[in-house]
Amino acid sequence: MAQEFVKDITNRDEDFAQWYTDIVRKAELADYSSVKGCMVLRPTGYALWENIQHYVDTRLKEMDHENVAMPLLIPEHLLLKEAEHVEGFAPEVAWVTHGGDSELAERLAVRPTSEVMFAEHFQNIIHSYRDLPKLYNQWVSVVRWEKTTRPFLRTTEFFWQEGHTCHDSFEDADKEALRLLDLYKEVCEELLAIPVVGGIKTDSERFAGAEITYTNETLMYDGKALQITTSHHLGDHFAKAFDIKFQAKDGSEQFVHQTSWAITTRSIGALIMVHGDDRGMIMPPRVAPTQVMIVPIAQNKEGVLEFADELHQMLKKEGLRVKVDKSDKMPGYKFNDSEMKGIPLRLEAGPRDIAASQVVLVRRDTGEKIIAPLDGLKEKISELLDAIQNNLFESAKVRAAEKTEYMEDRATFDARIEKGGFAITPWCGDAACEAKVKEETTATARCMTFEDNQEPVIGKTCPHCGKEAKHIVHWAKAY
Amino acid sequence: MAQEFVKDITNRDEDFAQWYTDIVRKAELADYSSVKGCMVLRPTGYALWENIQHYVDTRLKEMDHENVAMPLLIPEHLLLKEAEHVEGFAPEVAWVTHGGDSELAERLAVRPTSEVMFAEHFQNIIHSYRDLPKLYNQWVSVVRWEKTTRPFLRTTEFFWQEGHTCHDSFEDADKEALRLLDLYKEVCEELLAIPVVGGIKTDSERFAGAEITYTNETLMYDGKALQITTSHHLGDHFAKAFDIKFQAKDGSEQFVHQTSWAITTRSIGALIMVHGDDRGMIMPPRVAPTQVMIVPIAQNKEGVLEFADELHQMLKKEGLRVKVDKSDKMPGYKFNDSEMKGIPLRLEAGPRDIAASQVVLVRRDTGEKIIAPLDGLKEKISELLDAIQNNLFESAKVRAAEKTEYMEDRATFDARIEKGGFAITPWCGDAACEAKVKEETTATARCMTFEDNQEPVIGKTCPHCGKEAKHIVHWAKAY
Repeated sequence: MAQEFVKDITNRDEDFAQWYTDIVRKAELADYSSVKGCMVLRPTGYALWENIQHYVDTRLKEMDHENVAMPLLIPEHLLLKEAEHVEGFAPEVAWVTHGGDSELAERLAVRPTSEVMFAEHFQNIIHSYRDLPKLYNQWVSVVRWEKTTRPFLRTTEFFWQEGHTCHDSFEDADKEALRLLDLYKEVCEELLAIPVVGGIKTDSERFAGAEITYTNETLMYDGKALQITTSHHLGDHFAKAFDIKFQAKDGSEQFVHQTSWAITTRSIGALIMVHGDDRGMIMPPRVAPTQVMIVPIAQNKEGVLEFADELHQMLKKEGLRVKVDKSDKMPGYKFNDSEMKGIPLRLEAGPRDIAASQVVLVRRDTGEKIIAPLDGLKEKISELLDAIQNNLFESAKVRAAEKTEYMEDRATFDARIEKGGFAITPWCGDAACEAKVKEETTATARCMTFEDNQEPVIGKTCPHCGKEAKHIVHWAKAY
Repeated sequence: MAQEFVKDITNRDEDFAQWYTDIVRKAELADYSSVKGCMVLRPTGYALWENIQHYVDTRLKEMDHENVAMPLLIPEHLLLKEAEHVEGFAPEVAWVTHGGDSELAERLAVRPTSEVMFAEHFQNIIHSYRDLPKLYNQWVSVVRWEKTTRPFLRTTEFFWQEGHTCHDSFEDADKEALRLLDLYKEVCEELLAIPVVGGIKTDSERFAGAEITYTNETLMYDGKALQITTSHHLGDHFAKAFDIKFQAKDGSEQFVHQTSWAITTRSIGALIMVHGDDRGMIMPPRVAPTQVMIVPIAQNKEGVLEFADELHQMLKKEGLRVKVDKSDKMPGYKFNDSEMKGIPLRLEAGPRDIAASQVVLVRRDTGEKIIAPLDGLKEKISELLDAIQNNLFESAKVRAAEKTEYMEDRATFDARIEKGGFAITPWCGDAACEAKVKEETTATARCMTFEDNQEPVIGKTCPHCGKEAKHIVHWAKAY
């Protein structure tokens, strides 16, 4: 039975891409549809997204953000208003040209992002400094026409929240963009157990239309980096294009300064690629739709199903997310199924356990078996779930550290990029140099971390072009 | 000040349509955008929708439904598979024809509804009776190309949940469709304080592709009816078109039977039109984003703002949704603003109240002023909120009853339709007769209620054509 399951999932070190796809399908997170590049989010995949939503939405409301909803369709003339923005997005826009049988006078973009819709609305509703700050957010899906797609990682349609705020100064907008980057770091590390490296994007990697793009980057098991969340300081770019002005306290008329920021269903792809193993997915307990799977042993024996049901009700009442697998499959099948789906803790309960007033708990991350008395069971389970959450985070940190290396010469850089991971080097700041590195190695500048760039970079040389270095950059091949 | 506000809102009896639009704008529920027929849901409008979502989503999960997400875009060939369905929706589909710079090989519909996407997925994942029932739901927006639009009531894009289920028999699907109609009745009556009439649609009013459409209908203040929720028994129509089969317990291969059902942002339009008055919106407390607005009186006097803050924190801790209006406007302005936005209860707190350890509470529905001691304040507020909720529901029931009339002759029917409200008559069951009534009076058959049609209709004549009657029908002019 175990072999049949293992057979279903490609070995992770042999073919990481196929391993990933196997998990997405076999753990029933997503399914393909007949729409190229769009996925069906199945109950478990969507429940993961709901748990991320719940965490982020609660925190955003605590931070005084308000949810709104902008139209899905964007008239072309609005998209054209901010030059850099339209240049960035035009190649990947899906265009609506017909409504019913009639051709439209102006074609409409299916939103790839909503800066321009928010800008138009802000222009309507902001008049005075009293109207600021405006802290808005929306939970929607967006569409970007992608050539090559993979479930969660790069899909034509994906889900996200997009925050859009207006402030009365450049500094306040900057504080907001950084406050959100911090929140995203918290979401990644506390909820998803994914360690991140925060920093600033180089100009070539900046969001189309932004003044500054802040990013959280993270390493996958295969050593490739993934941009898990971004937060943009938009400056007054959209304010000038859309004439979003307010009367300041001193009576003068000023442009607002804006931010925008997002976390997407891509984070679920990262969750798989950071924590999964050869037996399947591993869900960090805090985000897992099911935290404990109860498997009745010898379930036809008298009292076993009743015992399982009692445990289920008891643990559910304690606020744990628990299921019982009562299907007519054998226990071995159920064990493997629960492991493949990444459920953090398995609870086995059979006649012997009933007799001894105990259950058997099995950790998904370590495989450790723990015999736990019924007395104090809830506390034991909570303790184990915390331990699993911490272990997943600490293990991911160790793996990332092993793959992160600072160097000042190109040979060591090339070797690290080849092996996978972050190669950290001084850099001249020149976009042409950055492009050459990408062309030669396929590695891109992921970010300039706050830690590495606190002080001016003095006396270092850019190993890529030999010029004087201005920044310290994290480079990596990336998703 | 009060006059200025009243001036802002058109008199409800003079011009109901303009009154409605005024409330949508002035209570800041929604705003127009430059996309024809699409609206911006502003924080209060979206918070209303979130409260409806929360109620419905919690109940659906209790009823074992699982949330999923289907792609936004539907390939044309899928839409064409169920003949009646495509005929119903084709005229109102927004078509994506280009991705980036390339013309697509097959055009894609922006989902007007998702029966066909669910059908394709169900065909993939359902194989055995063990896979049934499948109880799925999704929270999304849909697009239907409408000629004339009004915020909430009829918009090109609107928000909804759409439930889609599969069952192993016609009877089980029927039970599910009716279970959902009951849930929607509960949502309308318990949460929104809107009384509904439940029943079956005539064939001409049936959902395109359904076997039976169940509906909840309700009367607005102006006497026009509004279809607030529907639940469809799809029979095996889509199962046959998409080949959704399962192996039954007896080994035979059978088609599934399906349902689909929805509640939409239209319900917010109904909320306005059932409860609002000449001073603005009135929100039923259970769905109101803000239940109590605290207005500090003489807020520059020492201790007043602190008192207001203490009350705010105390009531918030008790689970009430409370705000304090600390703006630099006069109290009279704040009173009117809170009334216009329909906040159920106003709490006035000034120096005199501090001295007397009391506050003044003012009901939005009746205008009644209550002096409430601080001792027991939370209980008093809860009691008043319940009273407001009940009063709104009971008042709406009385207004609906006054406008609902049974008759067996056409003259009385014409007079009732002219005055507004439900005219109930026997009916022959002939679609041509129904179409003639619509042509002559603009009234449509809203539903055949369960109560009126429990027993066969014997010995009655259809007042519209003189033939023998088969059903008893609620007719009305409708939104």
